[in-house]
Amino acid sequence: MSDVRVREVGLRDGLQIIGTFMPTADKKEWIDRCVAAGFRELEICAFVPEKYIPQFRDANEVAVYASERPSLLPAALVPNLKGAERALAAGVGKLVCIISATEAFSQANLRRSKAQSMEELAAIVRLRDRAANSEYRAIIQVGISVAFGCPFEGRVPDSLVLSAAVAAAKAGADEISLADTAGQGDPGQVRRVFRALAKELPHLSHAAHLHDTRGTGLANVLAALEEGVGSFDASIAGLGGCPNSPGATGNIATEDLVFMLEAMGLDTGIDVQRLLEMRAFVAERLPEVRLFGHIGHAGLPKGFVPAHRSRAMRAS
Amino acid sequence: MSDVRVREVGLRDGLQIIGTFMPTADKKEWIDRCVAAGFRELEICAFVPEKYIPQFRDANEVAVYASERPSLLPAALVPNLKGAERALAAGVGKLVCIISATEAFSQANLRRSKAQSMEELAAIVRLRDRAANSEYRAIIQVGISVAFGCPFEGRVPDSLVLSAAVAAAKAGADEISLADTAGQGDPGQVRRVFRALAKELPHLSHAAHLHDTRGTGLANVLAALEEGVGSFDASIAGLGGCPNSPGATGNIATEDLVFMLEAMGLDTGIDVQRLLEMRAFVAERLPEVRLFGHIGHAGLPKGFVPAHRSRAMRAS
Repeated sequence: MSDVRVREVGLRDGLQIIGTFMPTADKKEWIDRCVAAGFRELEICAFVPEKYIPQFRDANEVAVYASERPSLLPAALVPNLKGAERALAAGVGKLVCIISATEAFSQANLRRSKAQSMEELAAIVRLRDRAANSEYRAIIQVGISVAFGCPFEGRVPDSLVLSAAVAAAKAGADEISLADTAGQGDPGQVRRVFRALAKELPHLSHAAHLHDTRGTGLANVLAALEEGVGSFDASIAGLGGCPNSPGATGNIATEDLVFMLEAMGLDTGIDVQRLLEMRAFVAERLPEVRLFGHIGHAGLPKGFVPAHRSRAMRAS
Repeated sequence: MSDVRVREVGLRDGLQIIGTFMPTADKKEWIDRCVAAGFRELEICAFVPEKYIPQFRDANEVAVYASERPSLLPAALVPNLKGAERALAAGVGKLVCIISATEAFSQANLRRSKAQSMEELAAIVRLRDRAANSEYRAIIQVGISVAFGCPFEGRVPDSLVLSAAVAAAKAGADEISLADTAGQGDPGQVRRVFRALAKELPHLSHAAHLHDTRGTGLANVLAALEEGVGSFDASIAGLGGCPNSPGATGNIATEDLVFMLEAMGLDTGIDVQRLLEMRAFVAERLPEVRLFGHIGHAGLPKGFVPAHRSRAMRAS
């Protein structure tokens, strides 16, 4: 068992803004590499219409493949009921449904109102319940976009995030993930909002999807970690980025996050050396894509010991 | 009065690895821009022999200029007694003396043993005391290199850092700055070592010189901040870097640090908009130098309010 869960989202969040289609065989190899590196959970694709994101036209094949890896919990983004149907049919273990903290971002990004998102979520939950049996019951994770700042509305009141989380819980969400979609949050705010969330919904799992757009990604992770958040999203080499800000990073680089957590003595179950190999694999298969992250350039520091080894050394 | 002090070190730590000489007039303009942006303290140069770092051949003129700005505390690196003499003659307000936590780094970087560094420090303190009068008494800041990891020795035991700090205090240091010279520290370690330092030397000022080589710069700042550290070094656009690791960052970018602190509601007294102008100035005057940092690409988030304004808004 790991102390903290790191979820690799490169296959979904990283690929969705990349113009060229990554071959299905490469995606499967990427999944295999993730499994070998020790990931227990991956976001593998989005079940969206092919005309919107052609990158995910092989979503079904990728999802079936990931669902057959015994140690892996695959998560897929489902923007609507149709997507949820496809994900459930593929046997995906976790459905990620996105709602927005603000009305403006909901309209711009999801093309519907917050109220309509909640209705869709409730319908997805009912569908999941009907599809559930003794062997398979998909987890519903609700991701709340722009929870720490909105590119349209600016500062987002904590109360807006909490009311969205409470509504999602009432609709049947199993997990709440707060997303710093545009990298606007600061550690004080991240700490405050997650603390309030833990108080409001203590029985739900809480996760964080924090971006590094303004360099605060790992500091925000630290703040969330100290409030008991147990699961963090990241993408290898920080894939994903901000399509609208050239040179700006989006996702936290998985290798940087795992390095920091392991250096702190927190066992992630993930082998950071294999992450560096995975970074090289991505660089080779996606040569046109800009890679971010620090460990990829600087390497691991001399004397670095992963958490499970440093623990064993102290115990012996 | 600011809640946290941010010290710009670009003029010293940033320039020292740059091959081309920055004209003295540009350095003075840079100092003026720092004063206008609200900095109270700058590291402006190193008093080193010209044959080692030709960049600082105008150290005296730059130091005299900075010392004449009434609102500014200029700090200069003095590697030895000769450098301290020159700095004191120029009226520099703070002398920065470097010692190393490890013997290997001391030999490689300072070309003397730790014991010799301590003797030099004691001699500098005596010189400072002799030069002091009712109007001028330079502050002695001791920077402890590789306090959170050594590129030669790997992990650095906390006890080594603390004993170096205690010895420096005994020799007459007014302030202790712990440096993550190679960006090897993690937030847990930073927290632990600064906590122990505050316990050991509660009457001295403590500062942090943290690098972002492995992406942990701001997370380490957060950890130090929570342990009461009140002063942080950074350089505009992350100038400085790691000469031995292409693509790897060194210093935390000042604009990213000030953004994070101000967003957290901590008043730095520094205008982040002026930092973005300063970044453009540096880009223009040092066109061959690679700039780092996030805010320079992504800009400030919509709705960003600096700490003094958000405080005033809450009060009204």
